[in-house]
Amino acid sequence: MTKKDLDALLNKMTLEEKVGQLVQLATPFFKGATDRGEITGPMVQMNIEEKDIQNTGSVLGASGAEETRNIQKVHLEENRLGIPLLFMSDIVHGFRTIFPVPLAIGCSWDLQLAEESASIAAKEAAASGVHVTFAPMVDLSREPRWGRVMESTGEDPFLNSEFARSFVRGFQGDLENDNTKVASCVKHFAAYGAPEGGRDYNTVDMSEWMLREQYLPAYKAALDEGCEMVMTAFNILNGIPSTGNEQLMRGLLREEWGFDGPLISDWGAVKELIPHGVAEDAKQAAEKAMKAGVDIEMMTSCYTNHVEELIEEGALEEGILDEAVLRILTLKEKLGLFENPYRGASKEAEEKSILTKENRDSARSLAHKSIVLLENKQKTLPLNSTSSIALVGPFANSTDILGPWSWGGSAEDTITLDKGMKRYAGEGLSIAEGCGIQEGTESDLQEALEQAKKADTIVVALGEHSDMSGEAGCRADIRIPEVQLQLLKEVKALGKPVVTVLFNGRPLDLREVAEHSDAVVEAWYPGTEGGNALADLLFGHVNPSGKLAMTMPYSVGQVPVYYNHFNTGRPKDAPDAQVRYVSQYLDIPNEPLYPFGYGLSYATFEYSEPVLSKNEIDASDSLTATVHVTNTSEVAGEEVVQMYIRDVAGEVVRPMKELKGFEKITLDPGETKEVTFEIDESKLRYHHANLEYKSDKGRFELFIGPNSRDTKTQNFLLR
Amino acid sequence: MTKKDLDALLNKMTLEEKVGQLVQLATPFFKGATDRGEITGPMVQMNIEEKDIQNTGSVLGASGAEETRNIQKVHLEENRLGIPLLFMSDIVHGFRTIFPVPLAIGCSWDLQLAEESASIAAKEAAASGVHVTFAPMVDLSREPRWGRVMESTGEDPFLNSEFARSFVRGFQGDLENDNTKVASCVKHFAAYGAPEGGRDYNTVDMSEWMLREQYLPAYKAALDEGCEMVMTAFNILNGIPSTGNEQLMRGLLREEWGFDGPLISDWGAVKELIPHGVAEDAKQAAEKAMKAGVDIEMMTSCYTNHVEELIEEGALEEGILDEAVLRILTLKEKLGLFENPYRGASKEAEEKSILTKENRDSARSLAHKSIVLLENKQKTLPLNSTSSIALVGPFANSTDILGPWSWGGSAEDTITLDKGMKRYAGEGLSIAEGCGIQEGTESDLQEALEQAKKADTIVVALGEHSDMSGEAGCRADIRIPEVQLQLLKEVKALGKPVVTVLFNGRPLDLREVAEHSDAVVEAWYPGTEGGNALADLLFGHVNPSGKLAMTMPYSVGQVPVYYNHFNTGRPKDAPDAQVRYVSQYLDIPNEPLYPFGYGLSYATFEYSEPVLSKNEIDASDSLTATVHVTNTSEVAGEEVVQMYIRDVAGEVVRPMKELKGFEKITLDPGETKEVTFEIDESKLRYHHANLEYKSDKGRFELFIGPNSRDTKTQNFLLR
Repeated sequence: MTKKDLDALLNKMTLEEKVGQLVQLATPFFKGATDRGEITGPMVQMNIEEKDIQNTGSVLGASGAEETRNIQKVHLEENRLGIPLLFMSDIVHGFRTIFPVPLAIGCSWDLQLAEESASIAAKEAAASGVHVTFAPMVDLSREPRWGRVMESTGEDPFLNSEFARSFVRGFQGDLENDNTKVASCVKHFAAYGAPEGGRDYNTVDMSEWMLREQYLPAYKAALDEGCEMVMTAFNILNGIPSTGNEQLMRGLLREEWGFDGPLISDWGAVKELIPHGVAEDAKQAAEKAMKAGVDIEMMTSCYTNHVEELIEEGALEEGILDEAVLRILTLKEKLGLFENPYRGASKEAEEKSILTKENRDSARSLAHKSIVLLENKQKTLPLNSTSSIALVGPFANSTDILGPWSWGGSAEDTITLDKGMKRYAGEGLSIAEGCGIQEGTESDLQEALEQAKKADTIVVALGEHSDMSGEAGCRADIRIPEVQLQLLKEVKALGKPVVTVLFNGRPLDLREVAEHSDAVVEAWYPGTEGGNALADLLFGHVNPSGKLAMTMPYSVGQVPVYYNHFNTGRPKDAPDAQVRYVSQYLDIPNEPLYPFGYGLSYATFEYSEPVLSKNEIDASDSLTATVHVTNTSEVAGEEVVQMYIRDVAGEVVRPMKELKGFEKITLDPGETKEVTFEIDESKLRYHHANLEYKSDKGRFELFIGPNSRDTKTQNFLLR
Repeated sequence: MTKKDLDALLNKMTLEEKVGQLVQLATPFFKGATDRGEITGPMVQMNIEEKDIQNTGSVLGASGAEETRNIQKVHLEENRLGIPLLFMSDIVHGFRTIFPVPLAIGCSWDLQLAEESASIAAKEAAASGVHVTFAPMVDLSREPRWGRVMESTGEDPFLNSEFARSFVRGFQGDLENDNTKVASCVKHFAAYGAPEGGRDYNTVDMSEWMLREQYLPAYKAALDEGCEMVMTAFNILNGIPSTGNEQLMRGLLREEWGFDGPLISDWGAVKELIPHGVAEDAKQAAEKAMKAGVDIEMMTSCYTNHVEELIEEGALEEGILDEAVLRILTLKEKLGLFENPYRGASKEAEEKSILTKENRDSARSLAHKSIVLLENKQKTLPLNSTSSIALVGPFANSTDILGPWSWGGSAEDTITLDKGMKRYAGEGLSIAEGCGIQEGTESDLQEALEQAKKADTIVVALGEHSDMSGEAGCRADIRIPEVQLQLLKEVKALGKPVVTVLFNGRPLDLREVAEHSDAVVEAWYPGTEGGNALADLLFGHVNPSGKLAMTMPYSVGQVPVYYNHFNTGRPKDAPDAQVRYVSQYLDIPNEPLYPFGYGLSYATFEYSEPVLSKNEIDASDSLTATVHVTNTSEVAGEEVVQMYIRDVAGEVVRPMKELKGFEKITLDPGETKEVTFEIDESKLRYHHANLEYKSDKGRFELFIGPNSRDTKTQNFLLR
């Protein structure tokens, strides 16, 4: 259909039909659904009727070729103008083949594999009838208490932006010509990752300067990559809920950034303008959301029940409605739904695409790269296959390693840690859980200790149940639960090498874990192939290379703690610092337990001093910074070489370090590689007090190293 | 001197002399000081000479009539134009007679006594030669980790504003005609109380909307009351250090608010523009601070070394310098220093004014009102004078109960808890510390337990050393130190009534204290008369009436937690709330341990339902809300009746409750009093998205009760 055809279609639509396009309902509302359950109750509650469903524009959460095709078929029979439905779902880190959670993917620093993971997720989902995925989630976060931090790639605007682009490329590819691709909906606009107290849905407040410097870049990167849709955030931003925020949505997103795709509310967020206290009732909520430019209302009926009335009363112009409908029709057209409403959905495609060996291999590779080796005292790792190993802890044989947002994955497809380890360890491996996630019995503990006593080495698999993170999964105490720490301490007291493997969805306070372990492996939620990937790493068949995409705090009392902080006027580490009157805590260090960018390898790498090609540049110029990295160990390994910059004096304060580039290299034993970064003026820009984005002349520091802490420095001038 | 005389004086001054007026140095720099110590080192470091000191405008920290008079005398002999020095000091909660710390004063809700405390502090300080006090500190704070929270009156903009006015009135009174008064310098402008992570001097970032709604009102209130000076904050605010923030200082403070008094930097804050990273060197720091409108540079020499040069180079206009000098000269004139450079300073005045019985009585009264009874299970309190009491804990006989910012107070003048209690308990009182603040020995513990075993009742005096709060006194763990909790638990295990008295400078996580105590008394740092005041309360001679001016969190993982929060779109306590998808923590409640406004009495009070005089008002109208409060106990008591309002739907989100009025009443046993609040449109205004301050028509809720949690509600409409 041409633009003209779409306009013609729009002209044929009644007000009611137009409003219907703006509505998104969950699968059971639709006649073609396999199981409609007790849908009459919700329908009464929402004050909607079957005719409203016939007019509805999109479906939430349906998948499976058979069902999606059937819903579409029935719908096309009943919809007066035969407008096909859009099927949208949360395909966040895989569909059936589950990849590591996004926070783990962030730790891979592997943009290529991240793109591949999205591409595979798209292929599996598209085969099952999904058209749009509510991903990537690119909310920058400095809040380990927040449950959804597992869904983000971390705390850095540059790294998050790079991943945002990769995910969008992977999901969308050549969307208009490739039925194995899905449209991407970036979320949650804006700044959902900064809830006060780390409590989900809570107040977000920050200066516009901070918003633009830190929180907005990743959304913008996704849109620059062509991301088709945007989802609003649940939170308020500076007093106004995002879903009713005209300045943010029409002003910044549409006018300033030129985004013209559909903007969808998060689940129920239009109606939530009432509890937020900016709308008296559903009608005012509909008016505010429409005026803000929210095109699709997810799972509440403020639009269905009130938009017609608002237009008839003149409170809303019909033009606003038409714009919104046209954006939705345009996306349907882009996906080819008017020509082929079933698009890529078929049983054959499902069989061919889902959970293939290639998909599993890719998930396993990404897990290899995502897992972070935090401690390895006295080279405890890798494990020796011939020694006897006791595997204890509640994650020893748990299938709960897919993480939140993995509803398409299944336990039976999941490779548990014990299963993975058995491939290498064989008979020498004994298994005992020892305790549950939050509770345990003395007899379970004793059983685990018995097994441990008999073994040469003990692997302790600890962590958080996946419900302990994810949406609304917020914790005020970010330690491993007490019962598990107890198990670890008792095991450690046996005096044997202890390797702790952690499964969790947030940065944790790991002080006690580090103290009572010889090696610590942060596995996050590694996905379907988690057990295999971990075994590969633990036994040294693959060398760990993951680097933290988010700071691991010293304790919850230190939160927020992140690498790209400002210096303050009284930095603790200044040469002339006083003992007392500096910015510090009396009881803990300012530094986190493990900094951003940190992660060990079985290999060791040595960095040369960086060499700059020149010491001054101007705006038309560039310089290169070169280091030589040498593998000083006996094993091959992979290293993420990181480059940071600091603007020594700006018009506004500048972070101590900002990531501006990185490169992954593989080094054989004894091998040296040269890594070169190019720096030009565009890398030195920042938002000034008046929000202008530009550079200042003056002195800069450049840092290169294996993480954000252990860097080597050079200086240069921008003239 | 008239304005004309001051202009004439200004015209006689050389550039160097003008710059000198902008400089503030500590006492040892001045020739007339009793002890100049090793001043040559600092002078070389600062690149200043004796002639610079001769030109200097003000002195930091000097007190004592003899010394201040001598410094002034020598200075007047050496200063070419005979311009007298201004003497400034931090007289925060008393000079020699130390009153409770400001956070405690906040808990008194007693504006009259707060004013009296400032008046007494002024009288003592003025007699010793102080002209300006760096107080009140009115930084609103929601951060218990922050050490300086003890210096603020808490978390509420309304209560803080009322106290700001009281303090300014008390310090300044009829400043120009009364030599027993001192000029007040409100601090720290702006938003110093919101440091990230609760770490002093750290990043402050918030929307301008939040700044105006919550953080600015108390500064404005102080200025509306005629406060003569303002001090800058150490922190950045939205990327720019306050001390170099032209928009904040010239724009908001001077142009918008019309403040024309001297603006002083905090200690060293001009030079700190360099580590902040907005100035390359001291010269640029001087330029930025001057341009921002900072008139006085405290304790660094950027102005001394660079302002002349900046003017000669044309980077600064001399007019900016002249303005600054004139503001300082005007204050000197206002204080009468040109006529009498010694003002109220004399040995006779000191003898007459300092640490008098009246002053001590006032400090004792304010301590009575400031101390908060948090728990009193089974009426454990008041104590019986005839029973035997063991007083244990590191604060049993500690003089460290004056709190930070009490350098003028002395241990020998301080009434310790044991001394106060002995007056009532006599021979029945035994004392043993049991442990130190952070450490203890087994023998000390056993000794305390021995004493406790012999007693009928045990009073446990626990807390923080005063260095654990105050400037740079930040803690990531906000519990009572472990060794003291251990003492408490062991004492409690004896099975006798345990009364815990707490001395500390911040809201603490008191879960364990509450669990292991029958009564909990929050004494804060109660000042010189602390022991007497506490004994009066513990033995029931005075009835507790303090109410928390700051929320006591459940745990540090809940921070920030404050009463006037927003509702979110998914409030946990909504009637239709889901189990999981609400704004909550999985592991702790959303509610604090003790809410804002909370505090018990030995009496019990019953509140009637509030009655409104009408249910609708318009902008020209008002209504009254009336409650009847009855003392249902056998003892007389004092109650703080609190009135809160909520705007149900605003253009921006509105707090769940906002304090809009309170009244302290005294009730005899069985007595009922009527308390009436008047509400008009002016109480319903707030800052809109465009920062306009106005009300919206619509529905409001009104709450009256004994604290911010346990309120009764009515509704009304603004038409």
